[in-house]
Order: sequence, then structure tokens, then C-alpha cells
Amino acid sequence: MLGRARALVGPALRRAVGALSPELRPLAEYHLGWRDADGGVVGGDGGKGIRPALALLSAEAAGADARVAVPGAVAVELVHNYSLVHDDVIDEDAERRHRPTLWVLYGVGRAIIVGDAMVALAQQVVLSPVETGVCDEAPFAPERAARGARRIADATAAMIAGQALDMAYEAIPTVDVADCVQMEAGKTGALLGCAAAIGAVLAGAPDEIAGALSSYGLELGLAFQAVDDLLGIWGDPVATGKPAWSDLRQHKKTLPVVAALSSGTARVEELAELLGREHLSEEETARAAALVEECGGRAMTLEEADRRLAAALSALAGADLVPRAAEELADVARFVVDREY
Amino acid sequence: MLGRARALVGPALRRAVGALSPELRPLAEYHLGWRDADGGVVGGDGGKGIRPALALLSAEAAGADARVAVPGAVAVELVHNYSLVHDDVIDEDAERRHRPTLWVLYGVGRAIIVGDAMVALAQQVVLSPVETGVCDEAPFAPERAARGARRIADATAAMIAGQALDMAYEAIPTVDVADCVQMEAGKTGALLGCAAAIGAVLAGAPDEIAGALSSYGLELGLAFQAVDDLLGIWGDPVATGKPAWSDLRQHKKTLPVVAALSSGTARVEELAELLGREHLSEEETARAAALVEECGGRAMTLEEADRRLAAALSALAGADLVPRAAEELADVARFVVDREY
Repeated sequence: MLGRARALVGPALRRAVGALSPELRPLAEYHLGWRDADGGVVGGDGGKGIRPALALLSAEAAGADARVAVPGAVAVELVHNYSLVHDDVIDEDAERRHRPTLWVLYGVGRAIIVGDAMVALAQQVVLSPVETGVCDEAPFAPERAARGARRIADATAAMIAGQALDMAYEAIPTVDVADCVQMEAGKTGALLGCAAAIGAVLAGAPDEIAGALSSYGLELGLAFQAVDDLLGIWGDPVATGKPAWSDLRQHKKTLPVVAALSSGTARVEELAELLGREHLSEEETARAAALVEECGGRAMTLEEADRRLAAALSALAGADLVPRAAEELADVARFVVDREY
Repeated sequence: MLGRARALVGPALRRAVGALSPELRPLAEYHLGWRDADGGVVGGDGGKGIRPALALLSAEAAGADARVAVPGAVAVELVHNYSLVHDDVIDEDAERRHRPTLWVLYGVGRAIIVGDAMVALAQQVVLSPVETGVCDEAPFAPERAARGARRIADATAAMIAGQALDMAYEAIPTVDVADCVQMEAGKTGALLGCAAAIGAVLAGAPDEIAGALSSYGLELGLAFQAVDDLLGIWGDPVATGKPAWSDLRQHKKTLPVVAALSSGTARVEELAELLGREHLSEEETARAAALVEECGGRAMTLEEADRRLAAALSALAGADLVPRAAEELADVARFVVDREY
């Protein structure tokens, strides 16, 4: 399915991005992995394409042709990439997928404006699929475009609110598990919920169908994020491209850390003291990782991932969906959780 | 009309912004002039409100009640303010309306995210006017919401492309008058064109009406920008809040400068040499301003403002509009050009 999504959505995404102005287009293409820093064309396809795959499957789950979802798939991929570009500036991250981030190469101003251009384009693609070069003829009536554009805008707003929460948490000493999940629901869950529903929405599916698919996507997002949080501490540096215990080094308050700190177990104080230090040595970082595990942070996060996966599958099972597409959606959920960890 | 727009649009804008998350809302309210830096509520109303006034008049010009335009008016005001917040970061401007800019007070990351939140909210307001608290009941059908949202997205994209051009011009030695006008059409004209058409669009007016109103707004924007460019050099520091010859000090390639440099007159070389210096003394800045005037830059920009005002009025005259509203639109155009310079 990921391959089929790439084949159907990839060219449409390229046509949409290709219509950006000459000042913006090469920078967007660099971020997407289609160009190197010198402007040369490279073969990268810009990530796994989970979101476009969900968008196409959601149309099929609602009994429609996957092609009706293409503008929605392009839009969610653009919103996802806009958020990466802006988040890299905000978090001062210098690398992404082993390459310098956009702001490092072209400056903060240009990274802001390229992100802005991508999110504006996302709305244009849903509202004007023909004019943006994404479709040869209008795949849905304006009333459906309005519903799709509303989902995109709501998901974007929720994602931004999640990012704002994440920034706020950096400044306060204690965050509990519920705060953490609320933040991740915004930052990661909202757009996956949108991706998993937008195909059905653009196909004109009833609200119950779109609602169930959106719940599936949100839960999948939370499962995905829990796994990501595990990888942020215990992931293999070769696979993640980040140093071991990366999130601990950066003092990120991710789910395993927050769960450990609020576990009420014996070693919490020692862990809190360690994490409170401004710089951690290699040895101290290893010790902190071991303490997070000892306080149950790793086990609780794994349970959270499993619980969210089960909730995603249950949202699918409770809706009147085309069985084959629903089974593929279930496979995507299992793949995302199993493959990563 | 500006007072009426404030009365009708102001409360709706406040309700929409009030629904932002607690991390974002006070920052947006600070930018809009509703709060001071300590979070205290102040009486400011956030600018002249030209754009909301245009949006309401455009509905009336199409024979509809002004209230149908309120979501469009709120949306253009949000897009305008989003662009100010991001442009202040990009241009590293430390003050706006005699107050510290958002990024100076809260950091670049928060300024990015607040701008992002405002532009997402703009789309939500048009696509979900009831849910965002802007209207008590749906003022238009989804098909019209889609047309309105498309105008907002297109104008936002054009504005971003204009800003990208502006940034690109900083890096190249010569820019001609056509380049400059193209940039200003994007940066300023597109959103004024959208403001002047969106009320008609949301009222369901035919394309000829919306098109004429949009042309009026674009031309008005170019007139406005020409006047702004004059004020940027020769404006009264008390009125503009900026030092005399401000744009020359900042080496901005605005219309008077570009027109002077491409005038082919005797003193062009002397002017180019002066403007090429990294730092200009007080005396040199005064000399540069005098040379821009001597090379005809001031006169040509004044002519451009007059020509654009005439084009705006002619776009109104050529369309089948409700006469009273069309006359008010003409007054707004004359007011913007006359009042400022």
C-alpha cells in the first residue's frame, strides 16, 4: 500500500510543489529530499508516506475510488512537512534524516516562509485540485472540498496547539502523563486522524464513517508517538540517526520520562535529580536511561503503545467499512508499531 | 465605515482569537494590541481596520447584507496579522506601532507558532463560522465557504510569494520598477484584493462582480504601497513612528529608489555609489534622499499612486455594483491614498 500511495500521490505532490514560485520551490524540494543542497536533483522520495497511504485507504474504506483522496493525501503530506520545517527552526534542530535542516542551509527567514508556503498550498490543493495541477478534472464538488479543507485547517490548528504545549512544558518542572498525552494527541495524533479520514470525507462518506476513521488515526498517532518516545531513548543509533539516549540528552519530557517521574517508585528522586542537571555526562545519561526503565517508564510506554494500537483497531472494527480496506488500515497500524520497535 | 466595521467585526475577531489555546491566545492578543507585555488588558483596537471595512463593503456592493461578510473580514484580518508577525521575525524588526514585536518579547519560536495559529484560524473561521464563535448561525452554504476559503488560501500564497521575492531582491544588485511592482502586488495587493472581494464571494455574487472588486482591491493595494514607500523615505517621523529616511537607512529597494536608479538621469551613478555603502551617516542619508528626489523617484512614485488609484476607481465604475457601497469603496481608496501622504 505504501508503494501504491507513492505511485498515485508522489507525482501529484511534485506537480503541486512545482507550481511554487521560483524563490520557494527549490527550498521546498530540498526539504522533501528531491534536491541536494546545491540544487541538484536526487532520487529521495521524502519519507515513508504513511499519511498519503492512510488518506487513500480511507476513501476505499468508505467504498470510493482511492483517486478521490489524492488532493487530501497531497495536502496532509504538505501540512506534515510544513510542521517539520517550522519545528526544526523552533527546536533549533540542525539535522533531519542525516541532512542539514532547511534553516541551517538557508536561514530562519527562508525556512519560515517555505513552511508558510507549504501550508497555504495544502489548502489550495484541496480547494482547487485542478488549478494546482493535482487532478485533471474536479474529483469532488465544492461542498466536499469545504469539508476536506475544514479537516485540514482543524488538524493544522490542533497540531500547532500541541507544539505550543510542548514549548510550554519545557518551562515547567513537572508534567504528568495526561499532559503528555494531550500534547502528543495534538502534535502527532491530529494530523494522522485527518489523514485517516480525509479520503472518506472527500468521497462524501457519512459522519459516522469519517468519525471512526479519524479516531483510528488519532489512536494510531498516539501509538506511533509512544513508540517514537521509546526510540528516542532506547533506539538503535544506526536506525534512528540520532545518538543513543538522544531525548534524555536533550532533556525532553517524553512519555517514558514523565511516566517514570510520576511512578511513585523508590528511585524517582534520584532520577529527578539527575535530569535536573544542566549537562549529563555519557555515564550519567546511561544511568538516567536505566533509572527511567527501573521506575517503569519503559514498560508503561510500551503498554500505552499497545493500548493505543488496540483502540485504533477497535475504532475500525466498530464502523461499517469495506472489509479489505479496513484490513489494510489495520495492517498499517500494526506495521507502524511493530516495525519501529 | 471604518467605525461600523470595527463594531461588527471587532467582537467576532475577539471571539475567534479567544478560542485559541491558553499558550497562544495571550501572545496573539498582545500582537493585536489588546494586551500589554505583562498580560494586562488594554484598550487598543489593533490598527485601522481597512481590510475588514473592504470585506463588509464588498458584500453590500454585491447587494447583500454586510453581516454575511463577517467571517471573511475576520479571516483577512487574521491573515494580515499573521503576515506581520512572521515578517517581523524575517526582517528582524524590533518594534511595531511603538511596541516591541512579538519575537522580541517571546522569542522566535513562539512568534512562528502564533503566526501559524492565526493563519490556520483564518481558514477555520471561513469554513466553520459557527464553531469558531464568529456567527450564531451559518451565514452561507458550504459551497460558498469553499469559494471564500480558496480566495483566502490564494491570497495567502500570493503574499508569501511576494515576501519571498522581497527577500530575494535583497541579494541582487539591481531590481527594476516592474520587479518592484510584482513584489508589491504579492505582498500588499493580493490580500487587499481578497478583502475587497470576499464579502461578495461569500454572498454568492457572480464571478464578474467578485473579479472587479478584486481588481479594485489589488490596485488600491498598489496605490497604498506606493504611498507607504513615499512615507518610508519622506514621512514625518512623528506620524510614522520611524526615523526620517527610514527605508534608505535600511537599504530597502522600494519604488522611489528603484525608479530613481533606473531613471537614466545624470545623478544615478552618484546615488548608486551612496546606496552601495554599508553604513550611511546622517548627512549621507539626507543626500541620498535628495538624490532619489532629483532623479525623479519621488515624482514617479506619486504618479504610480495616482495611476493605481485611478485604476481602482475604474474597476469599480466598470462593474454592476450597488451605487452607495461602490461610492463608499471609492471613498476608502481616496482616503487611503490622501490621508497617508
